[in-house]
Amino acid sequence: MVFQTNLERKIIENEEFLNKAESLLPVLNESYITPIQLVEVLPNKKKIHGWEVRSIDSVEQLSKMDFGKGDQVILDFGEHLVGYVTINITPVGSPPDAPLHLKLTFGEMPIEVAEDFSTYNGVISSGWLQEEVVHMDILPGILKLERRYSFRYMKVEVLATSPKYKVQFQKVVCKNVSSADLTAVSKLEHSDKMLQRMDQVSIKTLVDCMQEVFEDGPKRDRRLWLGDLRLQALANYATVKNNDLVKRCLYLFAGTPDDQGRLAANLFIQPSVIADDTYFIDYSLFFMDTLVDYFHETNDLVTLTDLWSIAFKQIENSLQFLDSNYLFKGEGFFAFIDWAEGLHKETATQGILIYVMKKALSVAHLVNNSHKLLLEETIPLLVEASKKYLWDSEKQLFVSGPTKQISYASQVWMVLAGVFSAQKAKETLEKLPSTDAIEPATPYMYHHLVEAYLVAGDRESALDRMKTYWGGMLEDGADTFWELYNPKNKAFSPYGHHLINSYCHAWSCTPTYLIRKYNM
Amino acid sequence: MVFQTNLERKIIENEEFLNKAESLLPVLNESYITPIQLVEVLPNKKKIHGWEVRSIDSVEQLSKMDFGKGDQVILDFGEHLVGYVTINITPVGSPPDAPLHLKLTFGEMPIEVAEDFSTYNGVISSGWLQEEVVHMDILPGILKLERRYSFRYMKVEVLATSPKYKVQFQKVVCKNVSSADLTAVSKLEHSDKMLQRMDQVSIKTLVDCMQEVFEDGPKRDRRLWLGDLRLQALANYATVKNNDLVKRCLYLFAGTPDDQGRLAANLFIQPSVIADDTYFIDYSLFFMDTLVDYFHETNDLVTLTDLWSIAFKQIENSLQFLDSNYLFKGEGFFAFIDWAEGLHKETATQGILIYVMKKALSVAHLVNNSHKLLLEETIPLLVEASKKYLWDSEKQLFVSGPTKQISYASQVWMVLAGVFSAQKAKETLEKLPSTDAIEPATPYMYHHLVEAYLVAGDRESALDRMKTYWGGMLEDGADTFWELYNPKNKAFSPYGHHLINSYCHAWSCTPTYLIRKYNM
Repeated sequence: MVFQTNLERKIIENEEFLNKAESLLPVLNESYITPIQLVEVLPNKKKIHGWEVRSIDSVEQLSKMDFGKGDQVILDFGEHLVGYVTINITPVGSPPDAPLHLKLTFGEMPIEVAEDFSTYNGVISSGWLQEEVVHMDILPGILKLERRYSFRYMKVEVLATSPKYKVQFQKVVCKNVSSADLTAVSKLEHSDKMLQRMDQVSIKTLVDCMQEVFEDGPKRDRRLWLGDLRLQALANYATVKNNDLVKRCLYLFAGTPDDQGRLAANLFIQPSVIADDTYFIDYSLFFMDTLVDYFHETNDLVTLTDLWSIAFKQIENSLQFLDSNYLFKGEGFFAFIDWAEGLHKETATQGILIYVMKKALSVAHLVNNSHKLLLEETIPLLVEASKKYLWDSEKQLFVSGPTKQISYASQVWMVLAGVFSAQKAKETLEKLPSTDAIEPATPYMYHHLVEAYLVAGDRESALDRMKTYWGGMLEDGADTFWELYNPKNKAFSPYGHHLINSYCHAWSCTPTYLIRKYNM
Repeated sequence: MVFQTNLERKIIENEEFLNKAESLLPVLNESYITPIQLVEVLPNKKKIHGWEVRSIDSVEQLSKMDFGKGDQVILDFGEHLVGYVTINITPVGSPPDAPLHLKLTFGEMPIEVAEDFSTYNGVISSGWLQEEVVHMDILPGILKLERRYSFRYMKVEVLATSPKYKVQFQKVVCKNVSSADLTAVSKLEHSDKMLQRMDQVSIKTLVDCMQEVFEDGPKRDRRLWLGDLRLQALANYATVKNNDLVKRCLYLFAGTPDDQGRLAANLFIQPSVIADDTYFIDYSLFFMDTLVDYFHETNDLVTLTDLWSIAFKQIENSLQFLDSNYLFKGEGFFAFIDWAEGLHKETATQGILIYVMKKALSVAHLVNNSHKLLLEETIPLLVEASKKYLWDSEKQLFVSGPTKQISYASQVWMVLAGVFSAQKAKETLEKLPSTDAIEPATPYMYHHLVEAYLVAGDRESALDRMKTYWGGMLEDGADTFWELYNPKNKAFSPYGHHLINSYCHAWSCTPTYLIRKYNM
């Protein structure tokens, strides 16, 4: 499950682009949020992950409670936050004759403040588990945590005071941060209250992921991933309209190609802009899609022109992986597509390539006529190849790979690529539930499935999927939408343990876009 | 073992005195120390606490070593340090895609970097155990630890990196701090190399405890204790001669009496000067002793005059505890004297009272004639009472309490009080080893025993005790002298666990004073 490592790849930085990105660095909006109640988290098999939150006292009681060694409290901030916590700590009893030793644990979900992190055995670094162990030598004092946390619940455990003193936690406050301006969002009044709530939670998810870049998740990985950016940008256009942040992110990617012109799957922003050494064909291609969406939204021809070459380069790179039949061939972890286990990705990638090339063609006449001609020539060849070699006329479904694997992903991307008419697309998608097709594993793939239904004119299936999927998360207590959700296996994690999953995740924020764009 | 708690006592601050103390705040001297080797700590029953340090590599190798999850290294700085550590950390491999999670453990002694702190079950707060757990979100980076540590050994454990990267520790450096100026110390060239080394280690112990005040121990409690201050001042006069620091500490104590005029056993310096709510008769009395020593050393009559009243007040307070026979009576944990278990303290306290009154009398004519007269009248009454009621003429030893307990402490303080002639004092002390007298438990009491031998003219026994006691620590590997040392039980701790003992402790720093003052 470790992504690619490409230690030898060489980055060719484009300083002009990076400077432009730097000039678009947003100022973060800050708000100060205090907890709303004291809670306990108890085992309950009927609740998500087996844990239930119960209120035990009002937050006003906190400052009257004395905490000695072994004591703990869980604070509920009432909503998902991304920010910096400070706690005013006052000693009670004799002058403190030993350092205070505290452990703080932050949870987006109840499980994170209920289960011991030492039980974590997943493949992703345990460094992401949000906890801090601190000593305070001087009391009274203000504990100002330097790291940013993504959480709703905060557990405070006193590891040590001394026999002579205890402590009280007076002011507890979180400086919440986001580069999004919520006042720009028109309120959606929907007759369907679930959709109305889904819209709100989508926006909250988006807003909490909007920091100095569009992050994938503020808990983990806190990074600018191209696949997430593309969806975040769509939700952004429908709501907070911070289009300069999209522009900034486009310039960041464009500023850090490798010597083959490839754009990385994600960027690190600190200590400086660094392209990760992971490359996914689908993500690289989506740079063009995101650029064209941005242009359609803003009519910013300067940016389109600036970034066209590097965007088109991703298409050119992908075309090199076509075989003589115009079929895309990939090796290793060449594309992301979805976390679905065992998924064969060539057919889906073929669909994405066609989809992106068509998107590019929609604006190519404005920037590069020879590219336009190339697209016009090549797209039909890929479409025909898809129909000829990837369509199983017996099953009436697209297949992928030597085992002729059937998956939602393959159908969805061929539908989004417009390989067939809407009617035939609808029929294809309708067939899927009765097959053993590999199902979507992530909100990311569910988004594409829903959009495929809508493109195929099947609003009913789209709505149904949204209600069972994102609606399911709402029923399971989501304050923000999750990185991963499998209604049939709610402990699912591609990382070996659901403690490490992100519960406010960018690629899950699209219902607001789907609802608003398609008037759901 | 918890000291007194006096939550109701009221402090009457003397602002003038506290301002004077503040004006004497020293500037700390800084030096930058790097580790000398990489070591491992292995079980060895013949070594102190059962642990032996073995060199495994030169420190130059460190920056070439890659550390991933679960890896660790122990750095040996070659000497005892008090300061602030910084580590330059560089990632190796792919760009770091998860926070680095590190645990750092600091040890004055090998055991501290060998045994798991979770095994600690003593009565003193585990908050003193020197460890830090930190996350670093941005790499490369400089880990700058904000807390001060007292140590020779530093263990670095990598709790998490990620599968995609490891780290290297490049520069590791400790900013060592002390308010002492070592260049003021005349070097002692002694024909006895053990005494020469003992002198050096004493001075190092003193210097490492000299910070913004004379601390008792830089690991624990990092506080200004009156009993320790008195001995530190003596070692200071013999060596680094930072007499202003003694003056500052005198003014700090004088600035924070309670409403009965009592001086606390110790002061906290941060966040502001706070008198602890622990009061020991012996420690309060030693304020006068320390003041008179300071005056003898400096001829600073202004300070003597300034602080005389509060110093004399401690004597007046103590006299209230005399019964009609002029015998001191105490209840509870009224005096410290020593950590020896079961020690009855009234006779020793009687001795301390006489000793301090005599010391006061030596300068009383310069400041307060009526006090002088009072002392002249009272001292003989206490001396006579001691001889009459506390001397067991059959055993030819001082006894204490209803069980007529025999202890080193009782004899030592009666000798130091000069109740008998030197010859009789010598005979008294000579009798002790053949009795079942309660023995000294701390370097603090050993200091008084050695000085009692010297006052009694028994240089041989004094030297013998120094060589077996502090010399024993040297043979057991002391870089600085320890808070506690029992050659017969090297794991002794009055706190229930020797992990929490301080291994650089002020009250153990006096050999340099004894050697230099008495020309040992």
